[in-house]
Amino acid sequence: MSSDIFKIEKKIKGRLGRAGVIKTSHGEIHTPAFIAVGTQATVKSLSPEQIKSAGIEAVLANTYHLYLKPGHKIIQKAGGLHKFMNWSGPTMTDSGGFQVFSLGADYDKKIGKIIGKKAGEIDDKKSDKTAVSLVKIDEEGVDFKSVVDGSSHRFTPEKSIEIQNYIGADSIFAFDECPPADASYEYQKTSLERTLRWATRCLDKHRELKVKSEKSKVKSPQSLFGIVQGGRIEELRRLSAKETTKMDFDGFGIGGSFNKNDIGTAVRWVNEELPEEKPRHLLGIGEPADIIGAIENGCDTFDCVVPTRMARNGALWTRRGRINILNSKYKNDFKPIEKDCGCYTCQNYTRAYISHLFRSKEMFSATLASIHNLAFLAKLVREARGAILDGKFQEFKGKIIHDL
Amino acid sequence: MSSDIFKIEKKIKGRLGRAGVIKTSHGEIHTPAFIAVGTQATVKSLSPEQIKSAGIEAVLANTYHLYLKPGHKIIQKAGGLHKFMNWSGPTMTDSGGFQVFSLGADYDKKIGKIIGKKAGEIDDKKSDKTAVSLVKIDEEGVDFKSVVDGSSHRFTPEKSIEIQNYIGADSIFAFDECPPADASYEYQKTSLERTLRWATRCLDKHRELKVKSEKSKVKSPQSLFGIVQGGRIEELRRLSAKETTKMDFDGFGIGGSFNKNDIGTAVRWVNEELPEEKPRHLLGIGEPADIIGAIENGCDTFDCVVPTRMARNGALWTRRGRINILNSKYKNDFKPIEKDCGCYTCQNYTRAYISHLFRSKEMFSATLASIHNLAFLAKLVREARGAILDGKFQEFKGKIIHDL
Repeated sequence: MSSDIFKIEKKIKGRLGRAGVIKTSHGEIHTPAFIAVGTQATVKSLSPEQIKSAGIEAVLANTYHLYLKPGHKIIQKAGGLHKFMNWSGPTMTDSGGFQVFSLGADYDKKIGKIIGKKAGEIDDKKSDKTAVSLVKIDEEGVDFKSVVDGSSHRFTPEKSIEIQNYIGADSIFAFDECPPADASYEYQKTSLERTLRWATRCLDKHRELKVKSEKSKVKSPQSLFGIVQGGRIEELRRLSAKETTKMDFDGFGIGGSFNKNDIGTAVRWVNEELPEEKPRHLLGIGEPADIIGAIENGCDTFDCVVPTRMARNGALWTRRGRINILNSKYKNDFKPIEKDCGCYTCQNYTRAYISHLFRSKEMFSATLASIHNLAFLAKLVREARGAILDGKFQEFKGKIIHDL
Repeated sequence: MSSDIFKIEKKIKGRLGRAGVIKTSHGEIHTPAFIAVGTQATVKSLSPEQIKSAGIEAVLANTYHLYLKPGHKIIQKAGGLHKFMNWSGPTMTDSGGFQVFSLGADYDKKIGKIIGKKAGEIDDKKSDKTAVSLVKIDEEGVDFKSVVDGSSHRFTPEKSIEIQNYIGADSIFAFDECPPADASYEYQKTSLERTLRWATRCLDKHRELKVKSEKSKVKSPQSLFGIVQGGRIEELRRLSAKETTKMDFDGFGIGGSFNKNDIGTAVRWVNEELPEEKPRHLLGIGEPADIIGAIENGCDTFDCVVPTRMARNGALWTRRGRINILNSKYKNDFKPIEKDCGCYTCQNYTRAYISHLFRSKEMFSATLASIHNLAFLAKLVREARGAILDGKFQEFKGKIIHDL
């Protein structure tokens, strides 16, 4: 089975999971694959060479942040995201939807009082009652305040696609609402139906820009992924997936909130509905055990800030669980983070040194820790891929899952 | 002319300056050379590979900081400084003297009130009157408070040499007092004479440890540099240099305060007295024009936090002067920092991108900026070296000095 951009190489017997290859004009992504997050057109503390050396093939940047800083037009003038950030491999951008809603609320919690509460703008009644949201949704789009300076902005599905077109990543996402985890069934359904209407508008705008860009021959083609929402409710997840499938997307993103103990099941609901031949990206999930569960249930790619954010806090993954390098016992530990890890950090530095860098608040601590956590995830999914290709996924999963 | 560790290749006609090679058991330093400062066993924000790619051959770490964190014994257990920080090239450590005095006063200014003023401990009456110094000097050594936690410590010449022996750099420095720039003639003379007595004790301790280490065959030999003080006073500079020359040091460090507009002259006083065949390190000087002046007047190596500290603040060196990348005009500037610069940063990134990283407070900004400033200095001294070898130093200096 294959689409224009995706080829399935082998499936897990009796499961939805598969190994494959996503083709982009900046190279291939061998799936399952973990995509590193480069929010502001940089994977925090890492050079592109360090990202690649960790075994990472693709980077996802955040549209919301790049729109605010430096501005999508500057990135276009620079020759697009790849050239701007010196990353020659495949790239993605998200739609900005998630940040508009999550950072909108967050911004308000932090400095809402300074700029004055605007009760009239409250719309999302399901969000945290202690915060007065500065995000206002209507059928056409969303008004929000910048997390940078509180200035007013408006995103619509068309605007998001246009911004992502300027930024120029290989794969982009449709603009969606990401309702809070505790939103009511009614609100989630309303939101989901609006997101479906927005999906159509994203596709229309995408086609319009595609025609333009084919005429000008300036750009590499972008693939557009539709987004499946529906939270933790099976009916809504299946509805969202079915309806999104009817539209002509190149692939699908699975967004929203999940039951923390069982992401695999919600992912299965969705992937049972999605067409097999198109790639599926699970948005914002990065815990090793969650990724293994999602791979088994048919997801191809993953992105998350967790590995690099945890790394910057000194939390390092090993096949025997997570260690906190700030624990005093590591001051005198001259072993690498993980014995059998082939990453740059483990090949060249001891726990004692990394512990010293963290205790001394040295920036290089973030670099070494981020390389390790990214390499850990990259290796994990690469091994999962190998196991699928060898027809041994269940064996692989059984061996590793309890220690993750 | 040559010593055990230094070979002069060519001298500047009619001047004290020269090009040469310092040999260490971790490779050669081609002089004149700029040594990057890795205070806490890391050059801030850079990997060893990035440091090398900037054209830097050697790293200087700070004994004071490493003694406090992680502790010199941990570095010894790790196999010494090189192995601990994964730097395979030549290394130096300073004696800790400069930090004991400067950070002692600084610590007090910041949090002296919290731990209570201890008037009885005031000794250095020439220091800033608004600060109550927590540094107490006597003939034997110095009591000081840790900049980390305010705990009490004592350095003696013997202790400094012992700590530096544990750390295991290729070249180490004698323990000296570095009096404040505005100290009186009398105080500077008293201090200088004590530093000379300390120098003898450092040499004695160094010999004792050398015999031990030769017996155990565990370590590479360390070379010990004596330190010349004397501030801005010619008589004291010459006296210090003459007396230090009489002792059996492997090389010399020139420390203390200088007249900002004319470092070259003070350096000349010293180098006219020092033996030609031994290497001379100018401590803590990193401004491009100062380095050129000091090269002409006989200094071989330099270290300073300035290039990397300035880089972290967005101040970038070019052959046409310094630019501040945070200036808004660089937001839209898609040229490299410097057109003809071959450094990793200039080969791969634009001013617009680096400006974006600084504005977004991204850690990678420090990495890219530090690589450029180090590469700038490394190239400058490499060109100075080439000009000396070609017999064209004055021509080279004439061409570049006004734009630096």
